[in-house]
Amino acid sequence: MYRTHTCGELRLEHAGNTVTLAGWVHRIRDFGGMNFIDLRDRYGITQLVFNPEHNDALAQSASQLGREFVIAVKGKVVERSNKNLQIPTGEIEIIVDELNVLNASITPPFTIEDDTDGGDDLRMKYRYLDLRRNPLQQNLLKRHEVAKAVRAYMDAQGFADVETPFFIKSTPEGARDFVVPSRLNPGQFYALPQSPQTFKQLLMVSGFDRYYQIVRCFRDEDLRADRQPEFTQIDCEMAFVEREDVLQMFEGLVKNVFKKVKGIELPEFPRMSYDDAMLFYGNDKPDIRFAMKFVALRESTPLSLGEGQGVRKNSVMIFPTGFKVFDDAETVIGICATGCAEYSRKQLDELTEFVKRPQLGANGLVYIKCNADGTFKSSVDKFYSQEDLKNIAEKFSAKAGDLILILAGETARTRKALSELRLEMGNRLGLRSKEEFKPLWVLDFPLLEFDEEEKRWNAMHHPFTSWRKEDDALLETDPGKVKANAYDIVMNGVELGGGSIRIHNRKNQERMFSALGMSKEQYDYKFGFILNAFEYGTPPHGGIAFGFDRFCSMVTANQEGIRDFIAFPKNNMGRDMMLDAPSDIDEKQKKELGL
Amino acid sequence: MYRTHTCGELRLEHAGNTVTLAGWVHRIRDFGGMNFIDLRDRYGITQLVFNPEHNDALAQSASQLGREFVIAVKGKVVERSNKNLQIPTGEIEIIVDELNVLNASITPPFTIEDDTDGGDDLRMKYRYLDLRRNPLQQNLLKRHEVAKAVRAYMDAQGFADVETPFFIKSTPEGARDFVVPSRLNPGQFYALPQSPQTFKQLLMVSGFDRYYQIVRCFRDEDLRADRQPEFTQIDCEMAFVEREDVLQMFEGLVKNVFKKVKGIELPEFPRMSYDDAMLFYGNDKPDIRFAMKFVALRESTPLSLGEGQGVRKNSVMIFPTGFKVFDDAETVIGICATGCAEYSRKQLDELTEFVKRPQLGANGLVYIKCNADGTFKSSVDKFYSQEDLKNIAEKFSAKAGDLILILAGETARTRKALSELRLEMGNRLGLRSKEEFKPLWVLDFPLLEFDEEEKRWNAMHHPFTSWRKEDDALLETDPGKVKANAYDIVMNGVELGGGSIRIHNRKNQERMFSALGMSKEQYDYKFGFILNAFEYGTPPHGGIAFGFDRFCSMVTANQEGIRDFIAFPKNNMGRDMMLDAPSDIDEKQKKELGL
Repeated sequence: MYRTHTCGELRLEHAGNTVTLAGWVHRIRDFGGMNFIDLRDRYGITQLVFNPEHNDALAQSASQLGREFVIAVKGKVVERSNKNLQIPTGEIEIIVDELNVLNASITPPFTIEDDTDGGDDLRMKYRYLDLRRNPLQQNLLKRHEVAKAVRAYMDAQGFADVETPFFIKSTPEGARDFVVPSRLNPGQFYALPQSPQTFKQLLMVSGFDRYYQIVRCFRDEDLRADRQPEFTQIDCEMAFVEREDVLQMFEGLVKNVFKKVKGIELPEFPRMSYDDAMLFYGNDKPDIRFAMKFVALRESTPLSLGEGQGVRKNSVMIFPTGFKVFDDAETVIGICATGCAEYSRKQLDELTEFVKRPQLGANGLVYIKCNADGTFKSSVDKFYSQEDLKNIAEKFSAKAGDLILILAGETARTRKALSELRLEMGNRLGLRSKEEFKPLWVLDFPLLEFDEEEKRWNAMHHPFTSWRKEDDALLETDPGKVKANAYDIVMNGVELGGGSIRIHNRKNQERMFSALGMSKEQYDYKFGFILNAFEYGTPPHGGIAFGFDRFCSMVTANQEGIRDFIAFPKNNMGRDMMLDAPSDIDEKQKKELGL
Repeated sequence: MYRTHTCGELRLEHAGNTVTLAGWVHRIRDFGGMNFIDLRDRYGITQLVFNPEHNDALAQSASQLGREFVIAVKGKVVERSNKNLQIPTGEIEIIVDELNVLNASITPPFTIEDDTDGGDDLRMKYRYLDLRRNPLQQNLLKRHEVAKAVRAYMDAQGFADVETPFFIKSTPEGARDFVVPSRLNPGQFYALPQSPQTFKQLLMVSGFDRYYQIVRCFRDEDLRADRQPEFTQIDCEMAFVEREDVLQMFEGLVKNVFKKVKGIELPEFPRMSYDDAMLFYGNDKPDIRFAMKFVALRESTPLSLGEGQGVRKNSVMIFPTGFKVFDDAETVIGICATGCAEYSRKQLDELTEFVKRPQLGANGLVYIKCNADGTFKSSVDKFYSQEDLKNIAEKFSAKAGDLILILAGETARTRKALSELRLEMGNRLGLRSKEEFKPLWVLDFPLLEFDEEEKRWNAMHHPFTSWRKEDDALLETDPGKVKANAYDIVMNGVELGGGSIRIHNRKNQERMFSALGMSKEQYDYKFGFILNAFEYGTPPHGGIAFGFDRFCSMVTANQEGIRDFIAFPKNNMGRDMMLDAPSDIDEKQKKELGL
């Protein structure tokens, strides 16, 4: 037996006991031959004492130990004179009588501390050492807690955890599939699932009624920072439901996880239409921890947004023409940053540079300072009178001391840039607290979006999403106006999940495939199995999927980055730096696969 | 809202309530215009009544319904005059007031009944309909119960569920890897894991201490009946453990699952050495629901079995020479089938044919009937006296009325054939009850086995398995004699899982790779990451993995077949008949992948 207790377990009440502990040498302090060693394992740290007056030979051995050696010790638990109340074991220490070196360690390439000195690449290569650091270890243990909370809720609600296949048929729609050559079926390939979408729908056809799975998915996309070729999804589906049933069920899931894992009671989730999200936040996943809503000074194309309640049709310019940039712009929108009128030239230049970065591509930034004395100072002073600026300020409900920031240009791009600027101002003003969690349902997405490159309509969510009954006639006549029965769940500006009520009959599914520009031959080849299934008594059904990596990152740390919540992630080129994968394979292997 | 209750929920106490139900039309019985419909969902069946005297138009509509239509009905719960106490809802029925056809169904290609008329291929193609059948649906729901019980135990024992990557490096040892071409790294491939073996060991290096995962694995083997290219594993690892710790922990797991899922208390698991298993059952996964142990009449090569306690060195022939088949055989072994002395010529011929099948390849079967009158009747009467036969019978402890069956030949093949014959006799004698569960630990496996084709040693479990300290010196001098710190858990003749205490230092891991005939260059390329990891303070560790598909099949139905416990299985050619996968992929897709 290697140990009687873990390194996180001993308390004052154990004083006098003889115990055996095993773990890693975390820190060594030598006080003139007297060695204090912090012994570490997953459960905590316990102080070991090697006293030459107690046992000289042992103290000598202890002085030979190095960081990250694995040792087992036997000794007596005693009360510490110098207590460390920062750690649960800080009231005791072990007077060591026996030392057993289980394994030595060469010097690690970086320190195993909360704040390590190792760079990203080094830590990725030695991931097994990086994972010894407490913050990463806690992230993964917390991930397990989240999974447990998810399963507990889903199990209690009667969802069946059914495993779906990883070797499926390649039916790329949107993102690329990863494929696997089949040796037994030469020249043919399996695809790895981008999600178990069709399988969960088939399980509804089969009458499983409620299904969930925490499941790996694969998407061969051009990688961006923090996007992984393999990722984990909480995948869910329910039969005999309408949208409201699904929203209630999964609002319950998120609330439950936050309660269990963080002890936080989330209030009822507000709801917002996609159109309002775009109009007021320029973004379909708005961070509503703070307001700072967009104010439109001009929207020349309100109708392109559909006719949702949020669309304001006005948008006559409230100031005279003269400033060509505004006059010619499709859209002129701005935000009001409370109390920022004192921003310096330098600060304003920073914001201008921020929106002019190539990712955002704004041409410039117009500001209006609402001075304490009631006057206005603007970068477009020469085009507008104080009266004009006052009118604008009123439209923003700006007070003395506030700063108005305005962008103009093509609608989609300008919204995107202002959305980013809004988040930047939220950061600068400390409005995006790590302690605050603001969930939101975004509803009524467009069913389709036009792909300018391919000159065809794409499904905004996926091709199995149904649409609002009242828009049915538009699918063939004005597809851009059709609203989907789709919903996203957003928190603090991060999309946690999304789903929809599905199409559940062959005719509508075929109409959808046609709307996406697929021929009957194409969709029969790719999706014949599910079209057929729809003919044998398919119940109405709908579901949702959460990005589990991101969900864990949000619950654990209120952040968007996911790499620190995955045990062995890939880098931005999809490489595992530790394994050095992908790699070449044997010629023999290739030959067997017919490659 | 589609329903107020499920079809399994209503009882007598609901009589008088107005309810809405939704589900599938399971059966329709027409009694002169009065229609009784069994409405089915995952939760049960409820009887609907459409009475023309109550509502003629509705009864007319009901008569238009077909099997597997999806309907919703509103009506009143009433007590049945003709109760069906076989089903939980059998005391009530619904007098229907409203009928809503949610979806029609064309006629299914086979009946949705417990015993269906559909053949295997048809049911595989329409798997979503086959999964509507109660037995299959219950299998998968039970699988979820097993998973829940596994997770509850592992969680309670402090195991962390950590997800490991699916895109790894190809390091084929033994079975072939499935590979995935990388578009972003042209010419390179990921491999899909045959198991997360190296990752779980790295998690021990990282200090996760206890790890588990229910995880998909992939193995590109030539398929046999009921072997799937993708399968699920309960994968576990523990640090700071010796063999006994692991055995206790996972015996606890199996006991716990049986208690929770089946209400069965399993007794302490017996243990058997590999040598004894081979000697007495000819098989490293013996079915010990019944004894019928092998008796050796001659074992000319006992030393090839190693020197475990089970090996009997005697095995001098107890009868005189003369029968050339026995005289020349490496091994002569038999079993005693209690009470089978009356077997007819036809029955004995069947058994002879059974062992002569090409899979077993025995040359013939010798029998000795122990007659009621104390005489013996044997197929080798002419070579042996009654006295010789009596001596043999005594060795088998055979009583009057028993039948002795003897095989002779090369040791491994003869043992295999007799093992199968033993199981066949067990079946014929009703000794393999579906109600009985007999677990067993098999211990002390050989570390290596010689591959006659490749003329080199292979790891019997895998190359990370450690060996008994006392055999250390033999690794380079007599590798066949080295016993591994490995263990299998067997139940009713089925291997549920297996594992080992691992090698945890670089030197021994390199010795192992060398013993397997790998050059330093080869193992550094393939396994450099784990060899390196072993240098940074790796704790002693060990673990186990269970085949989850088989585990579920055993717990649920006490059977070895797994296909009925997987939602969407592949056929014996690795094909998904429903999806028609694997399939061709686009030329564009191939080109992007550089294939």
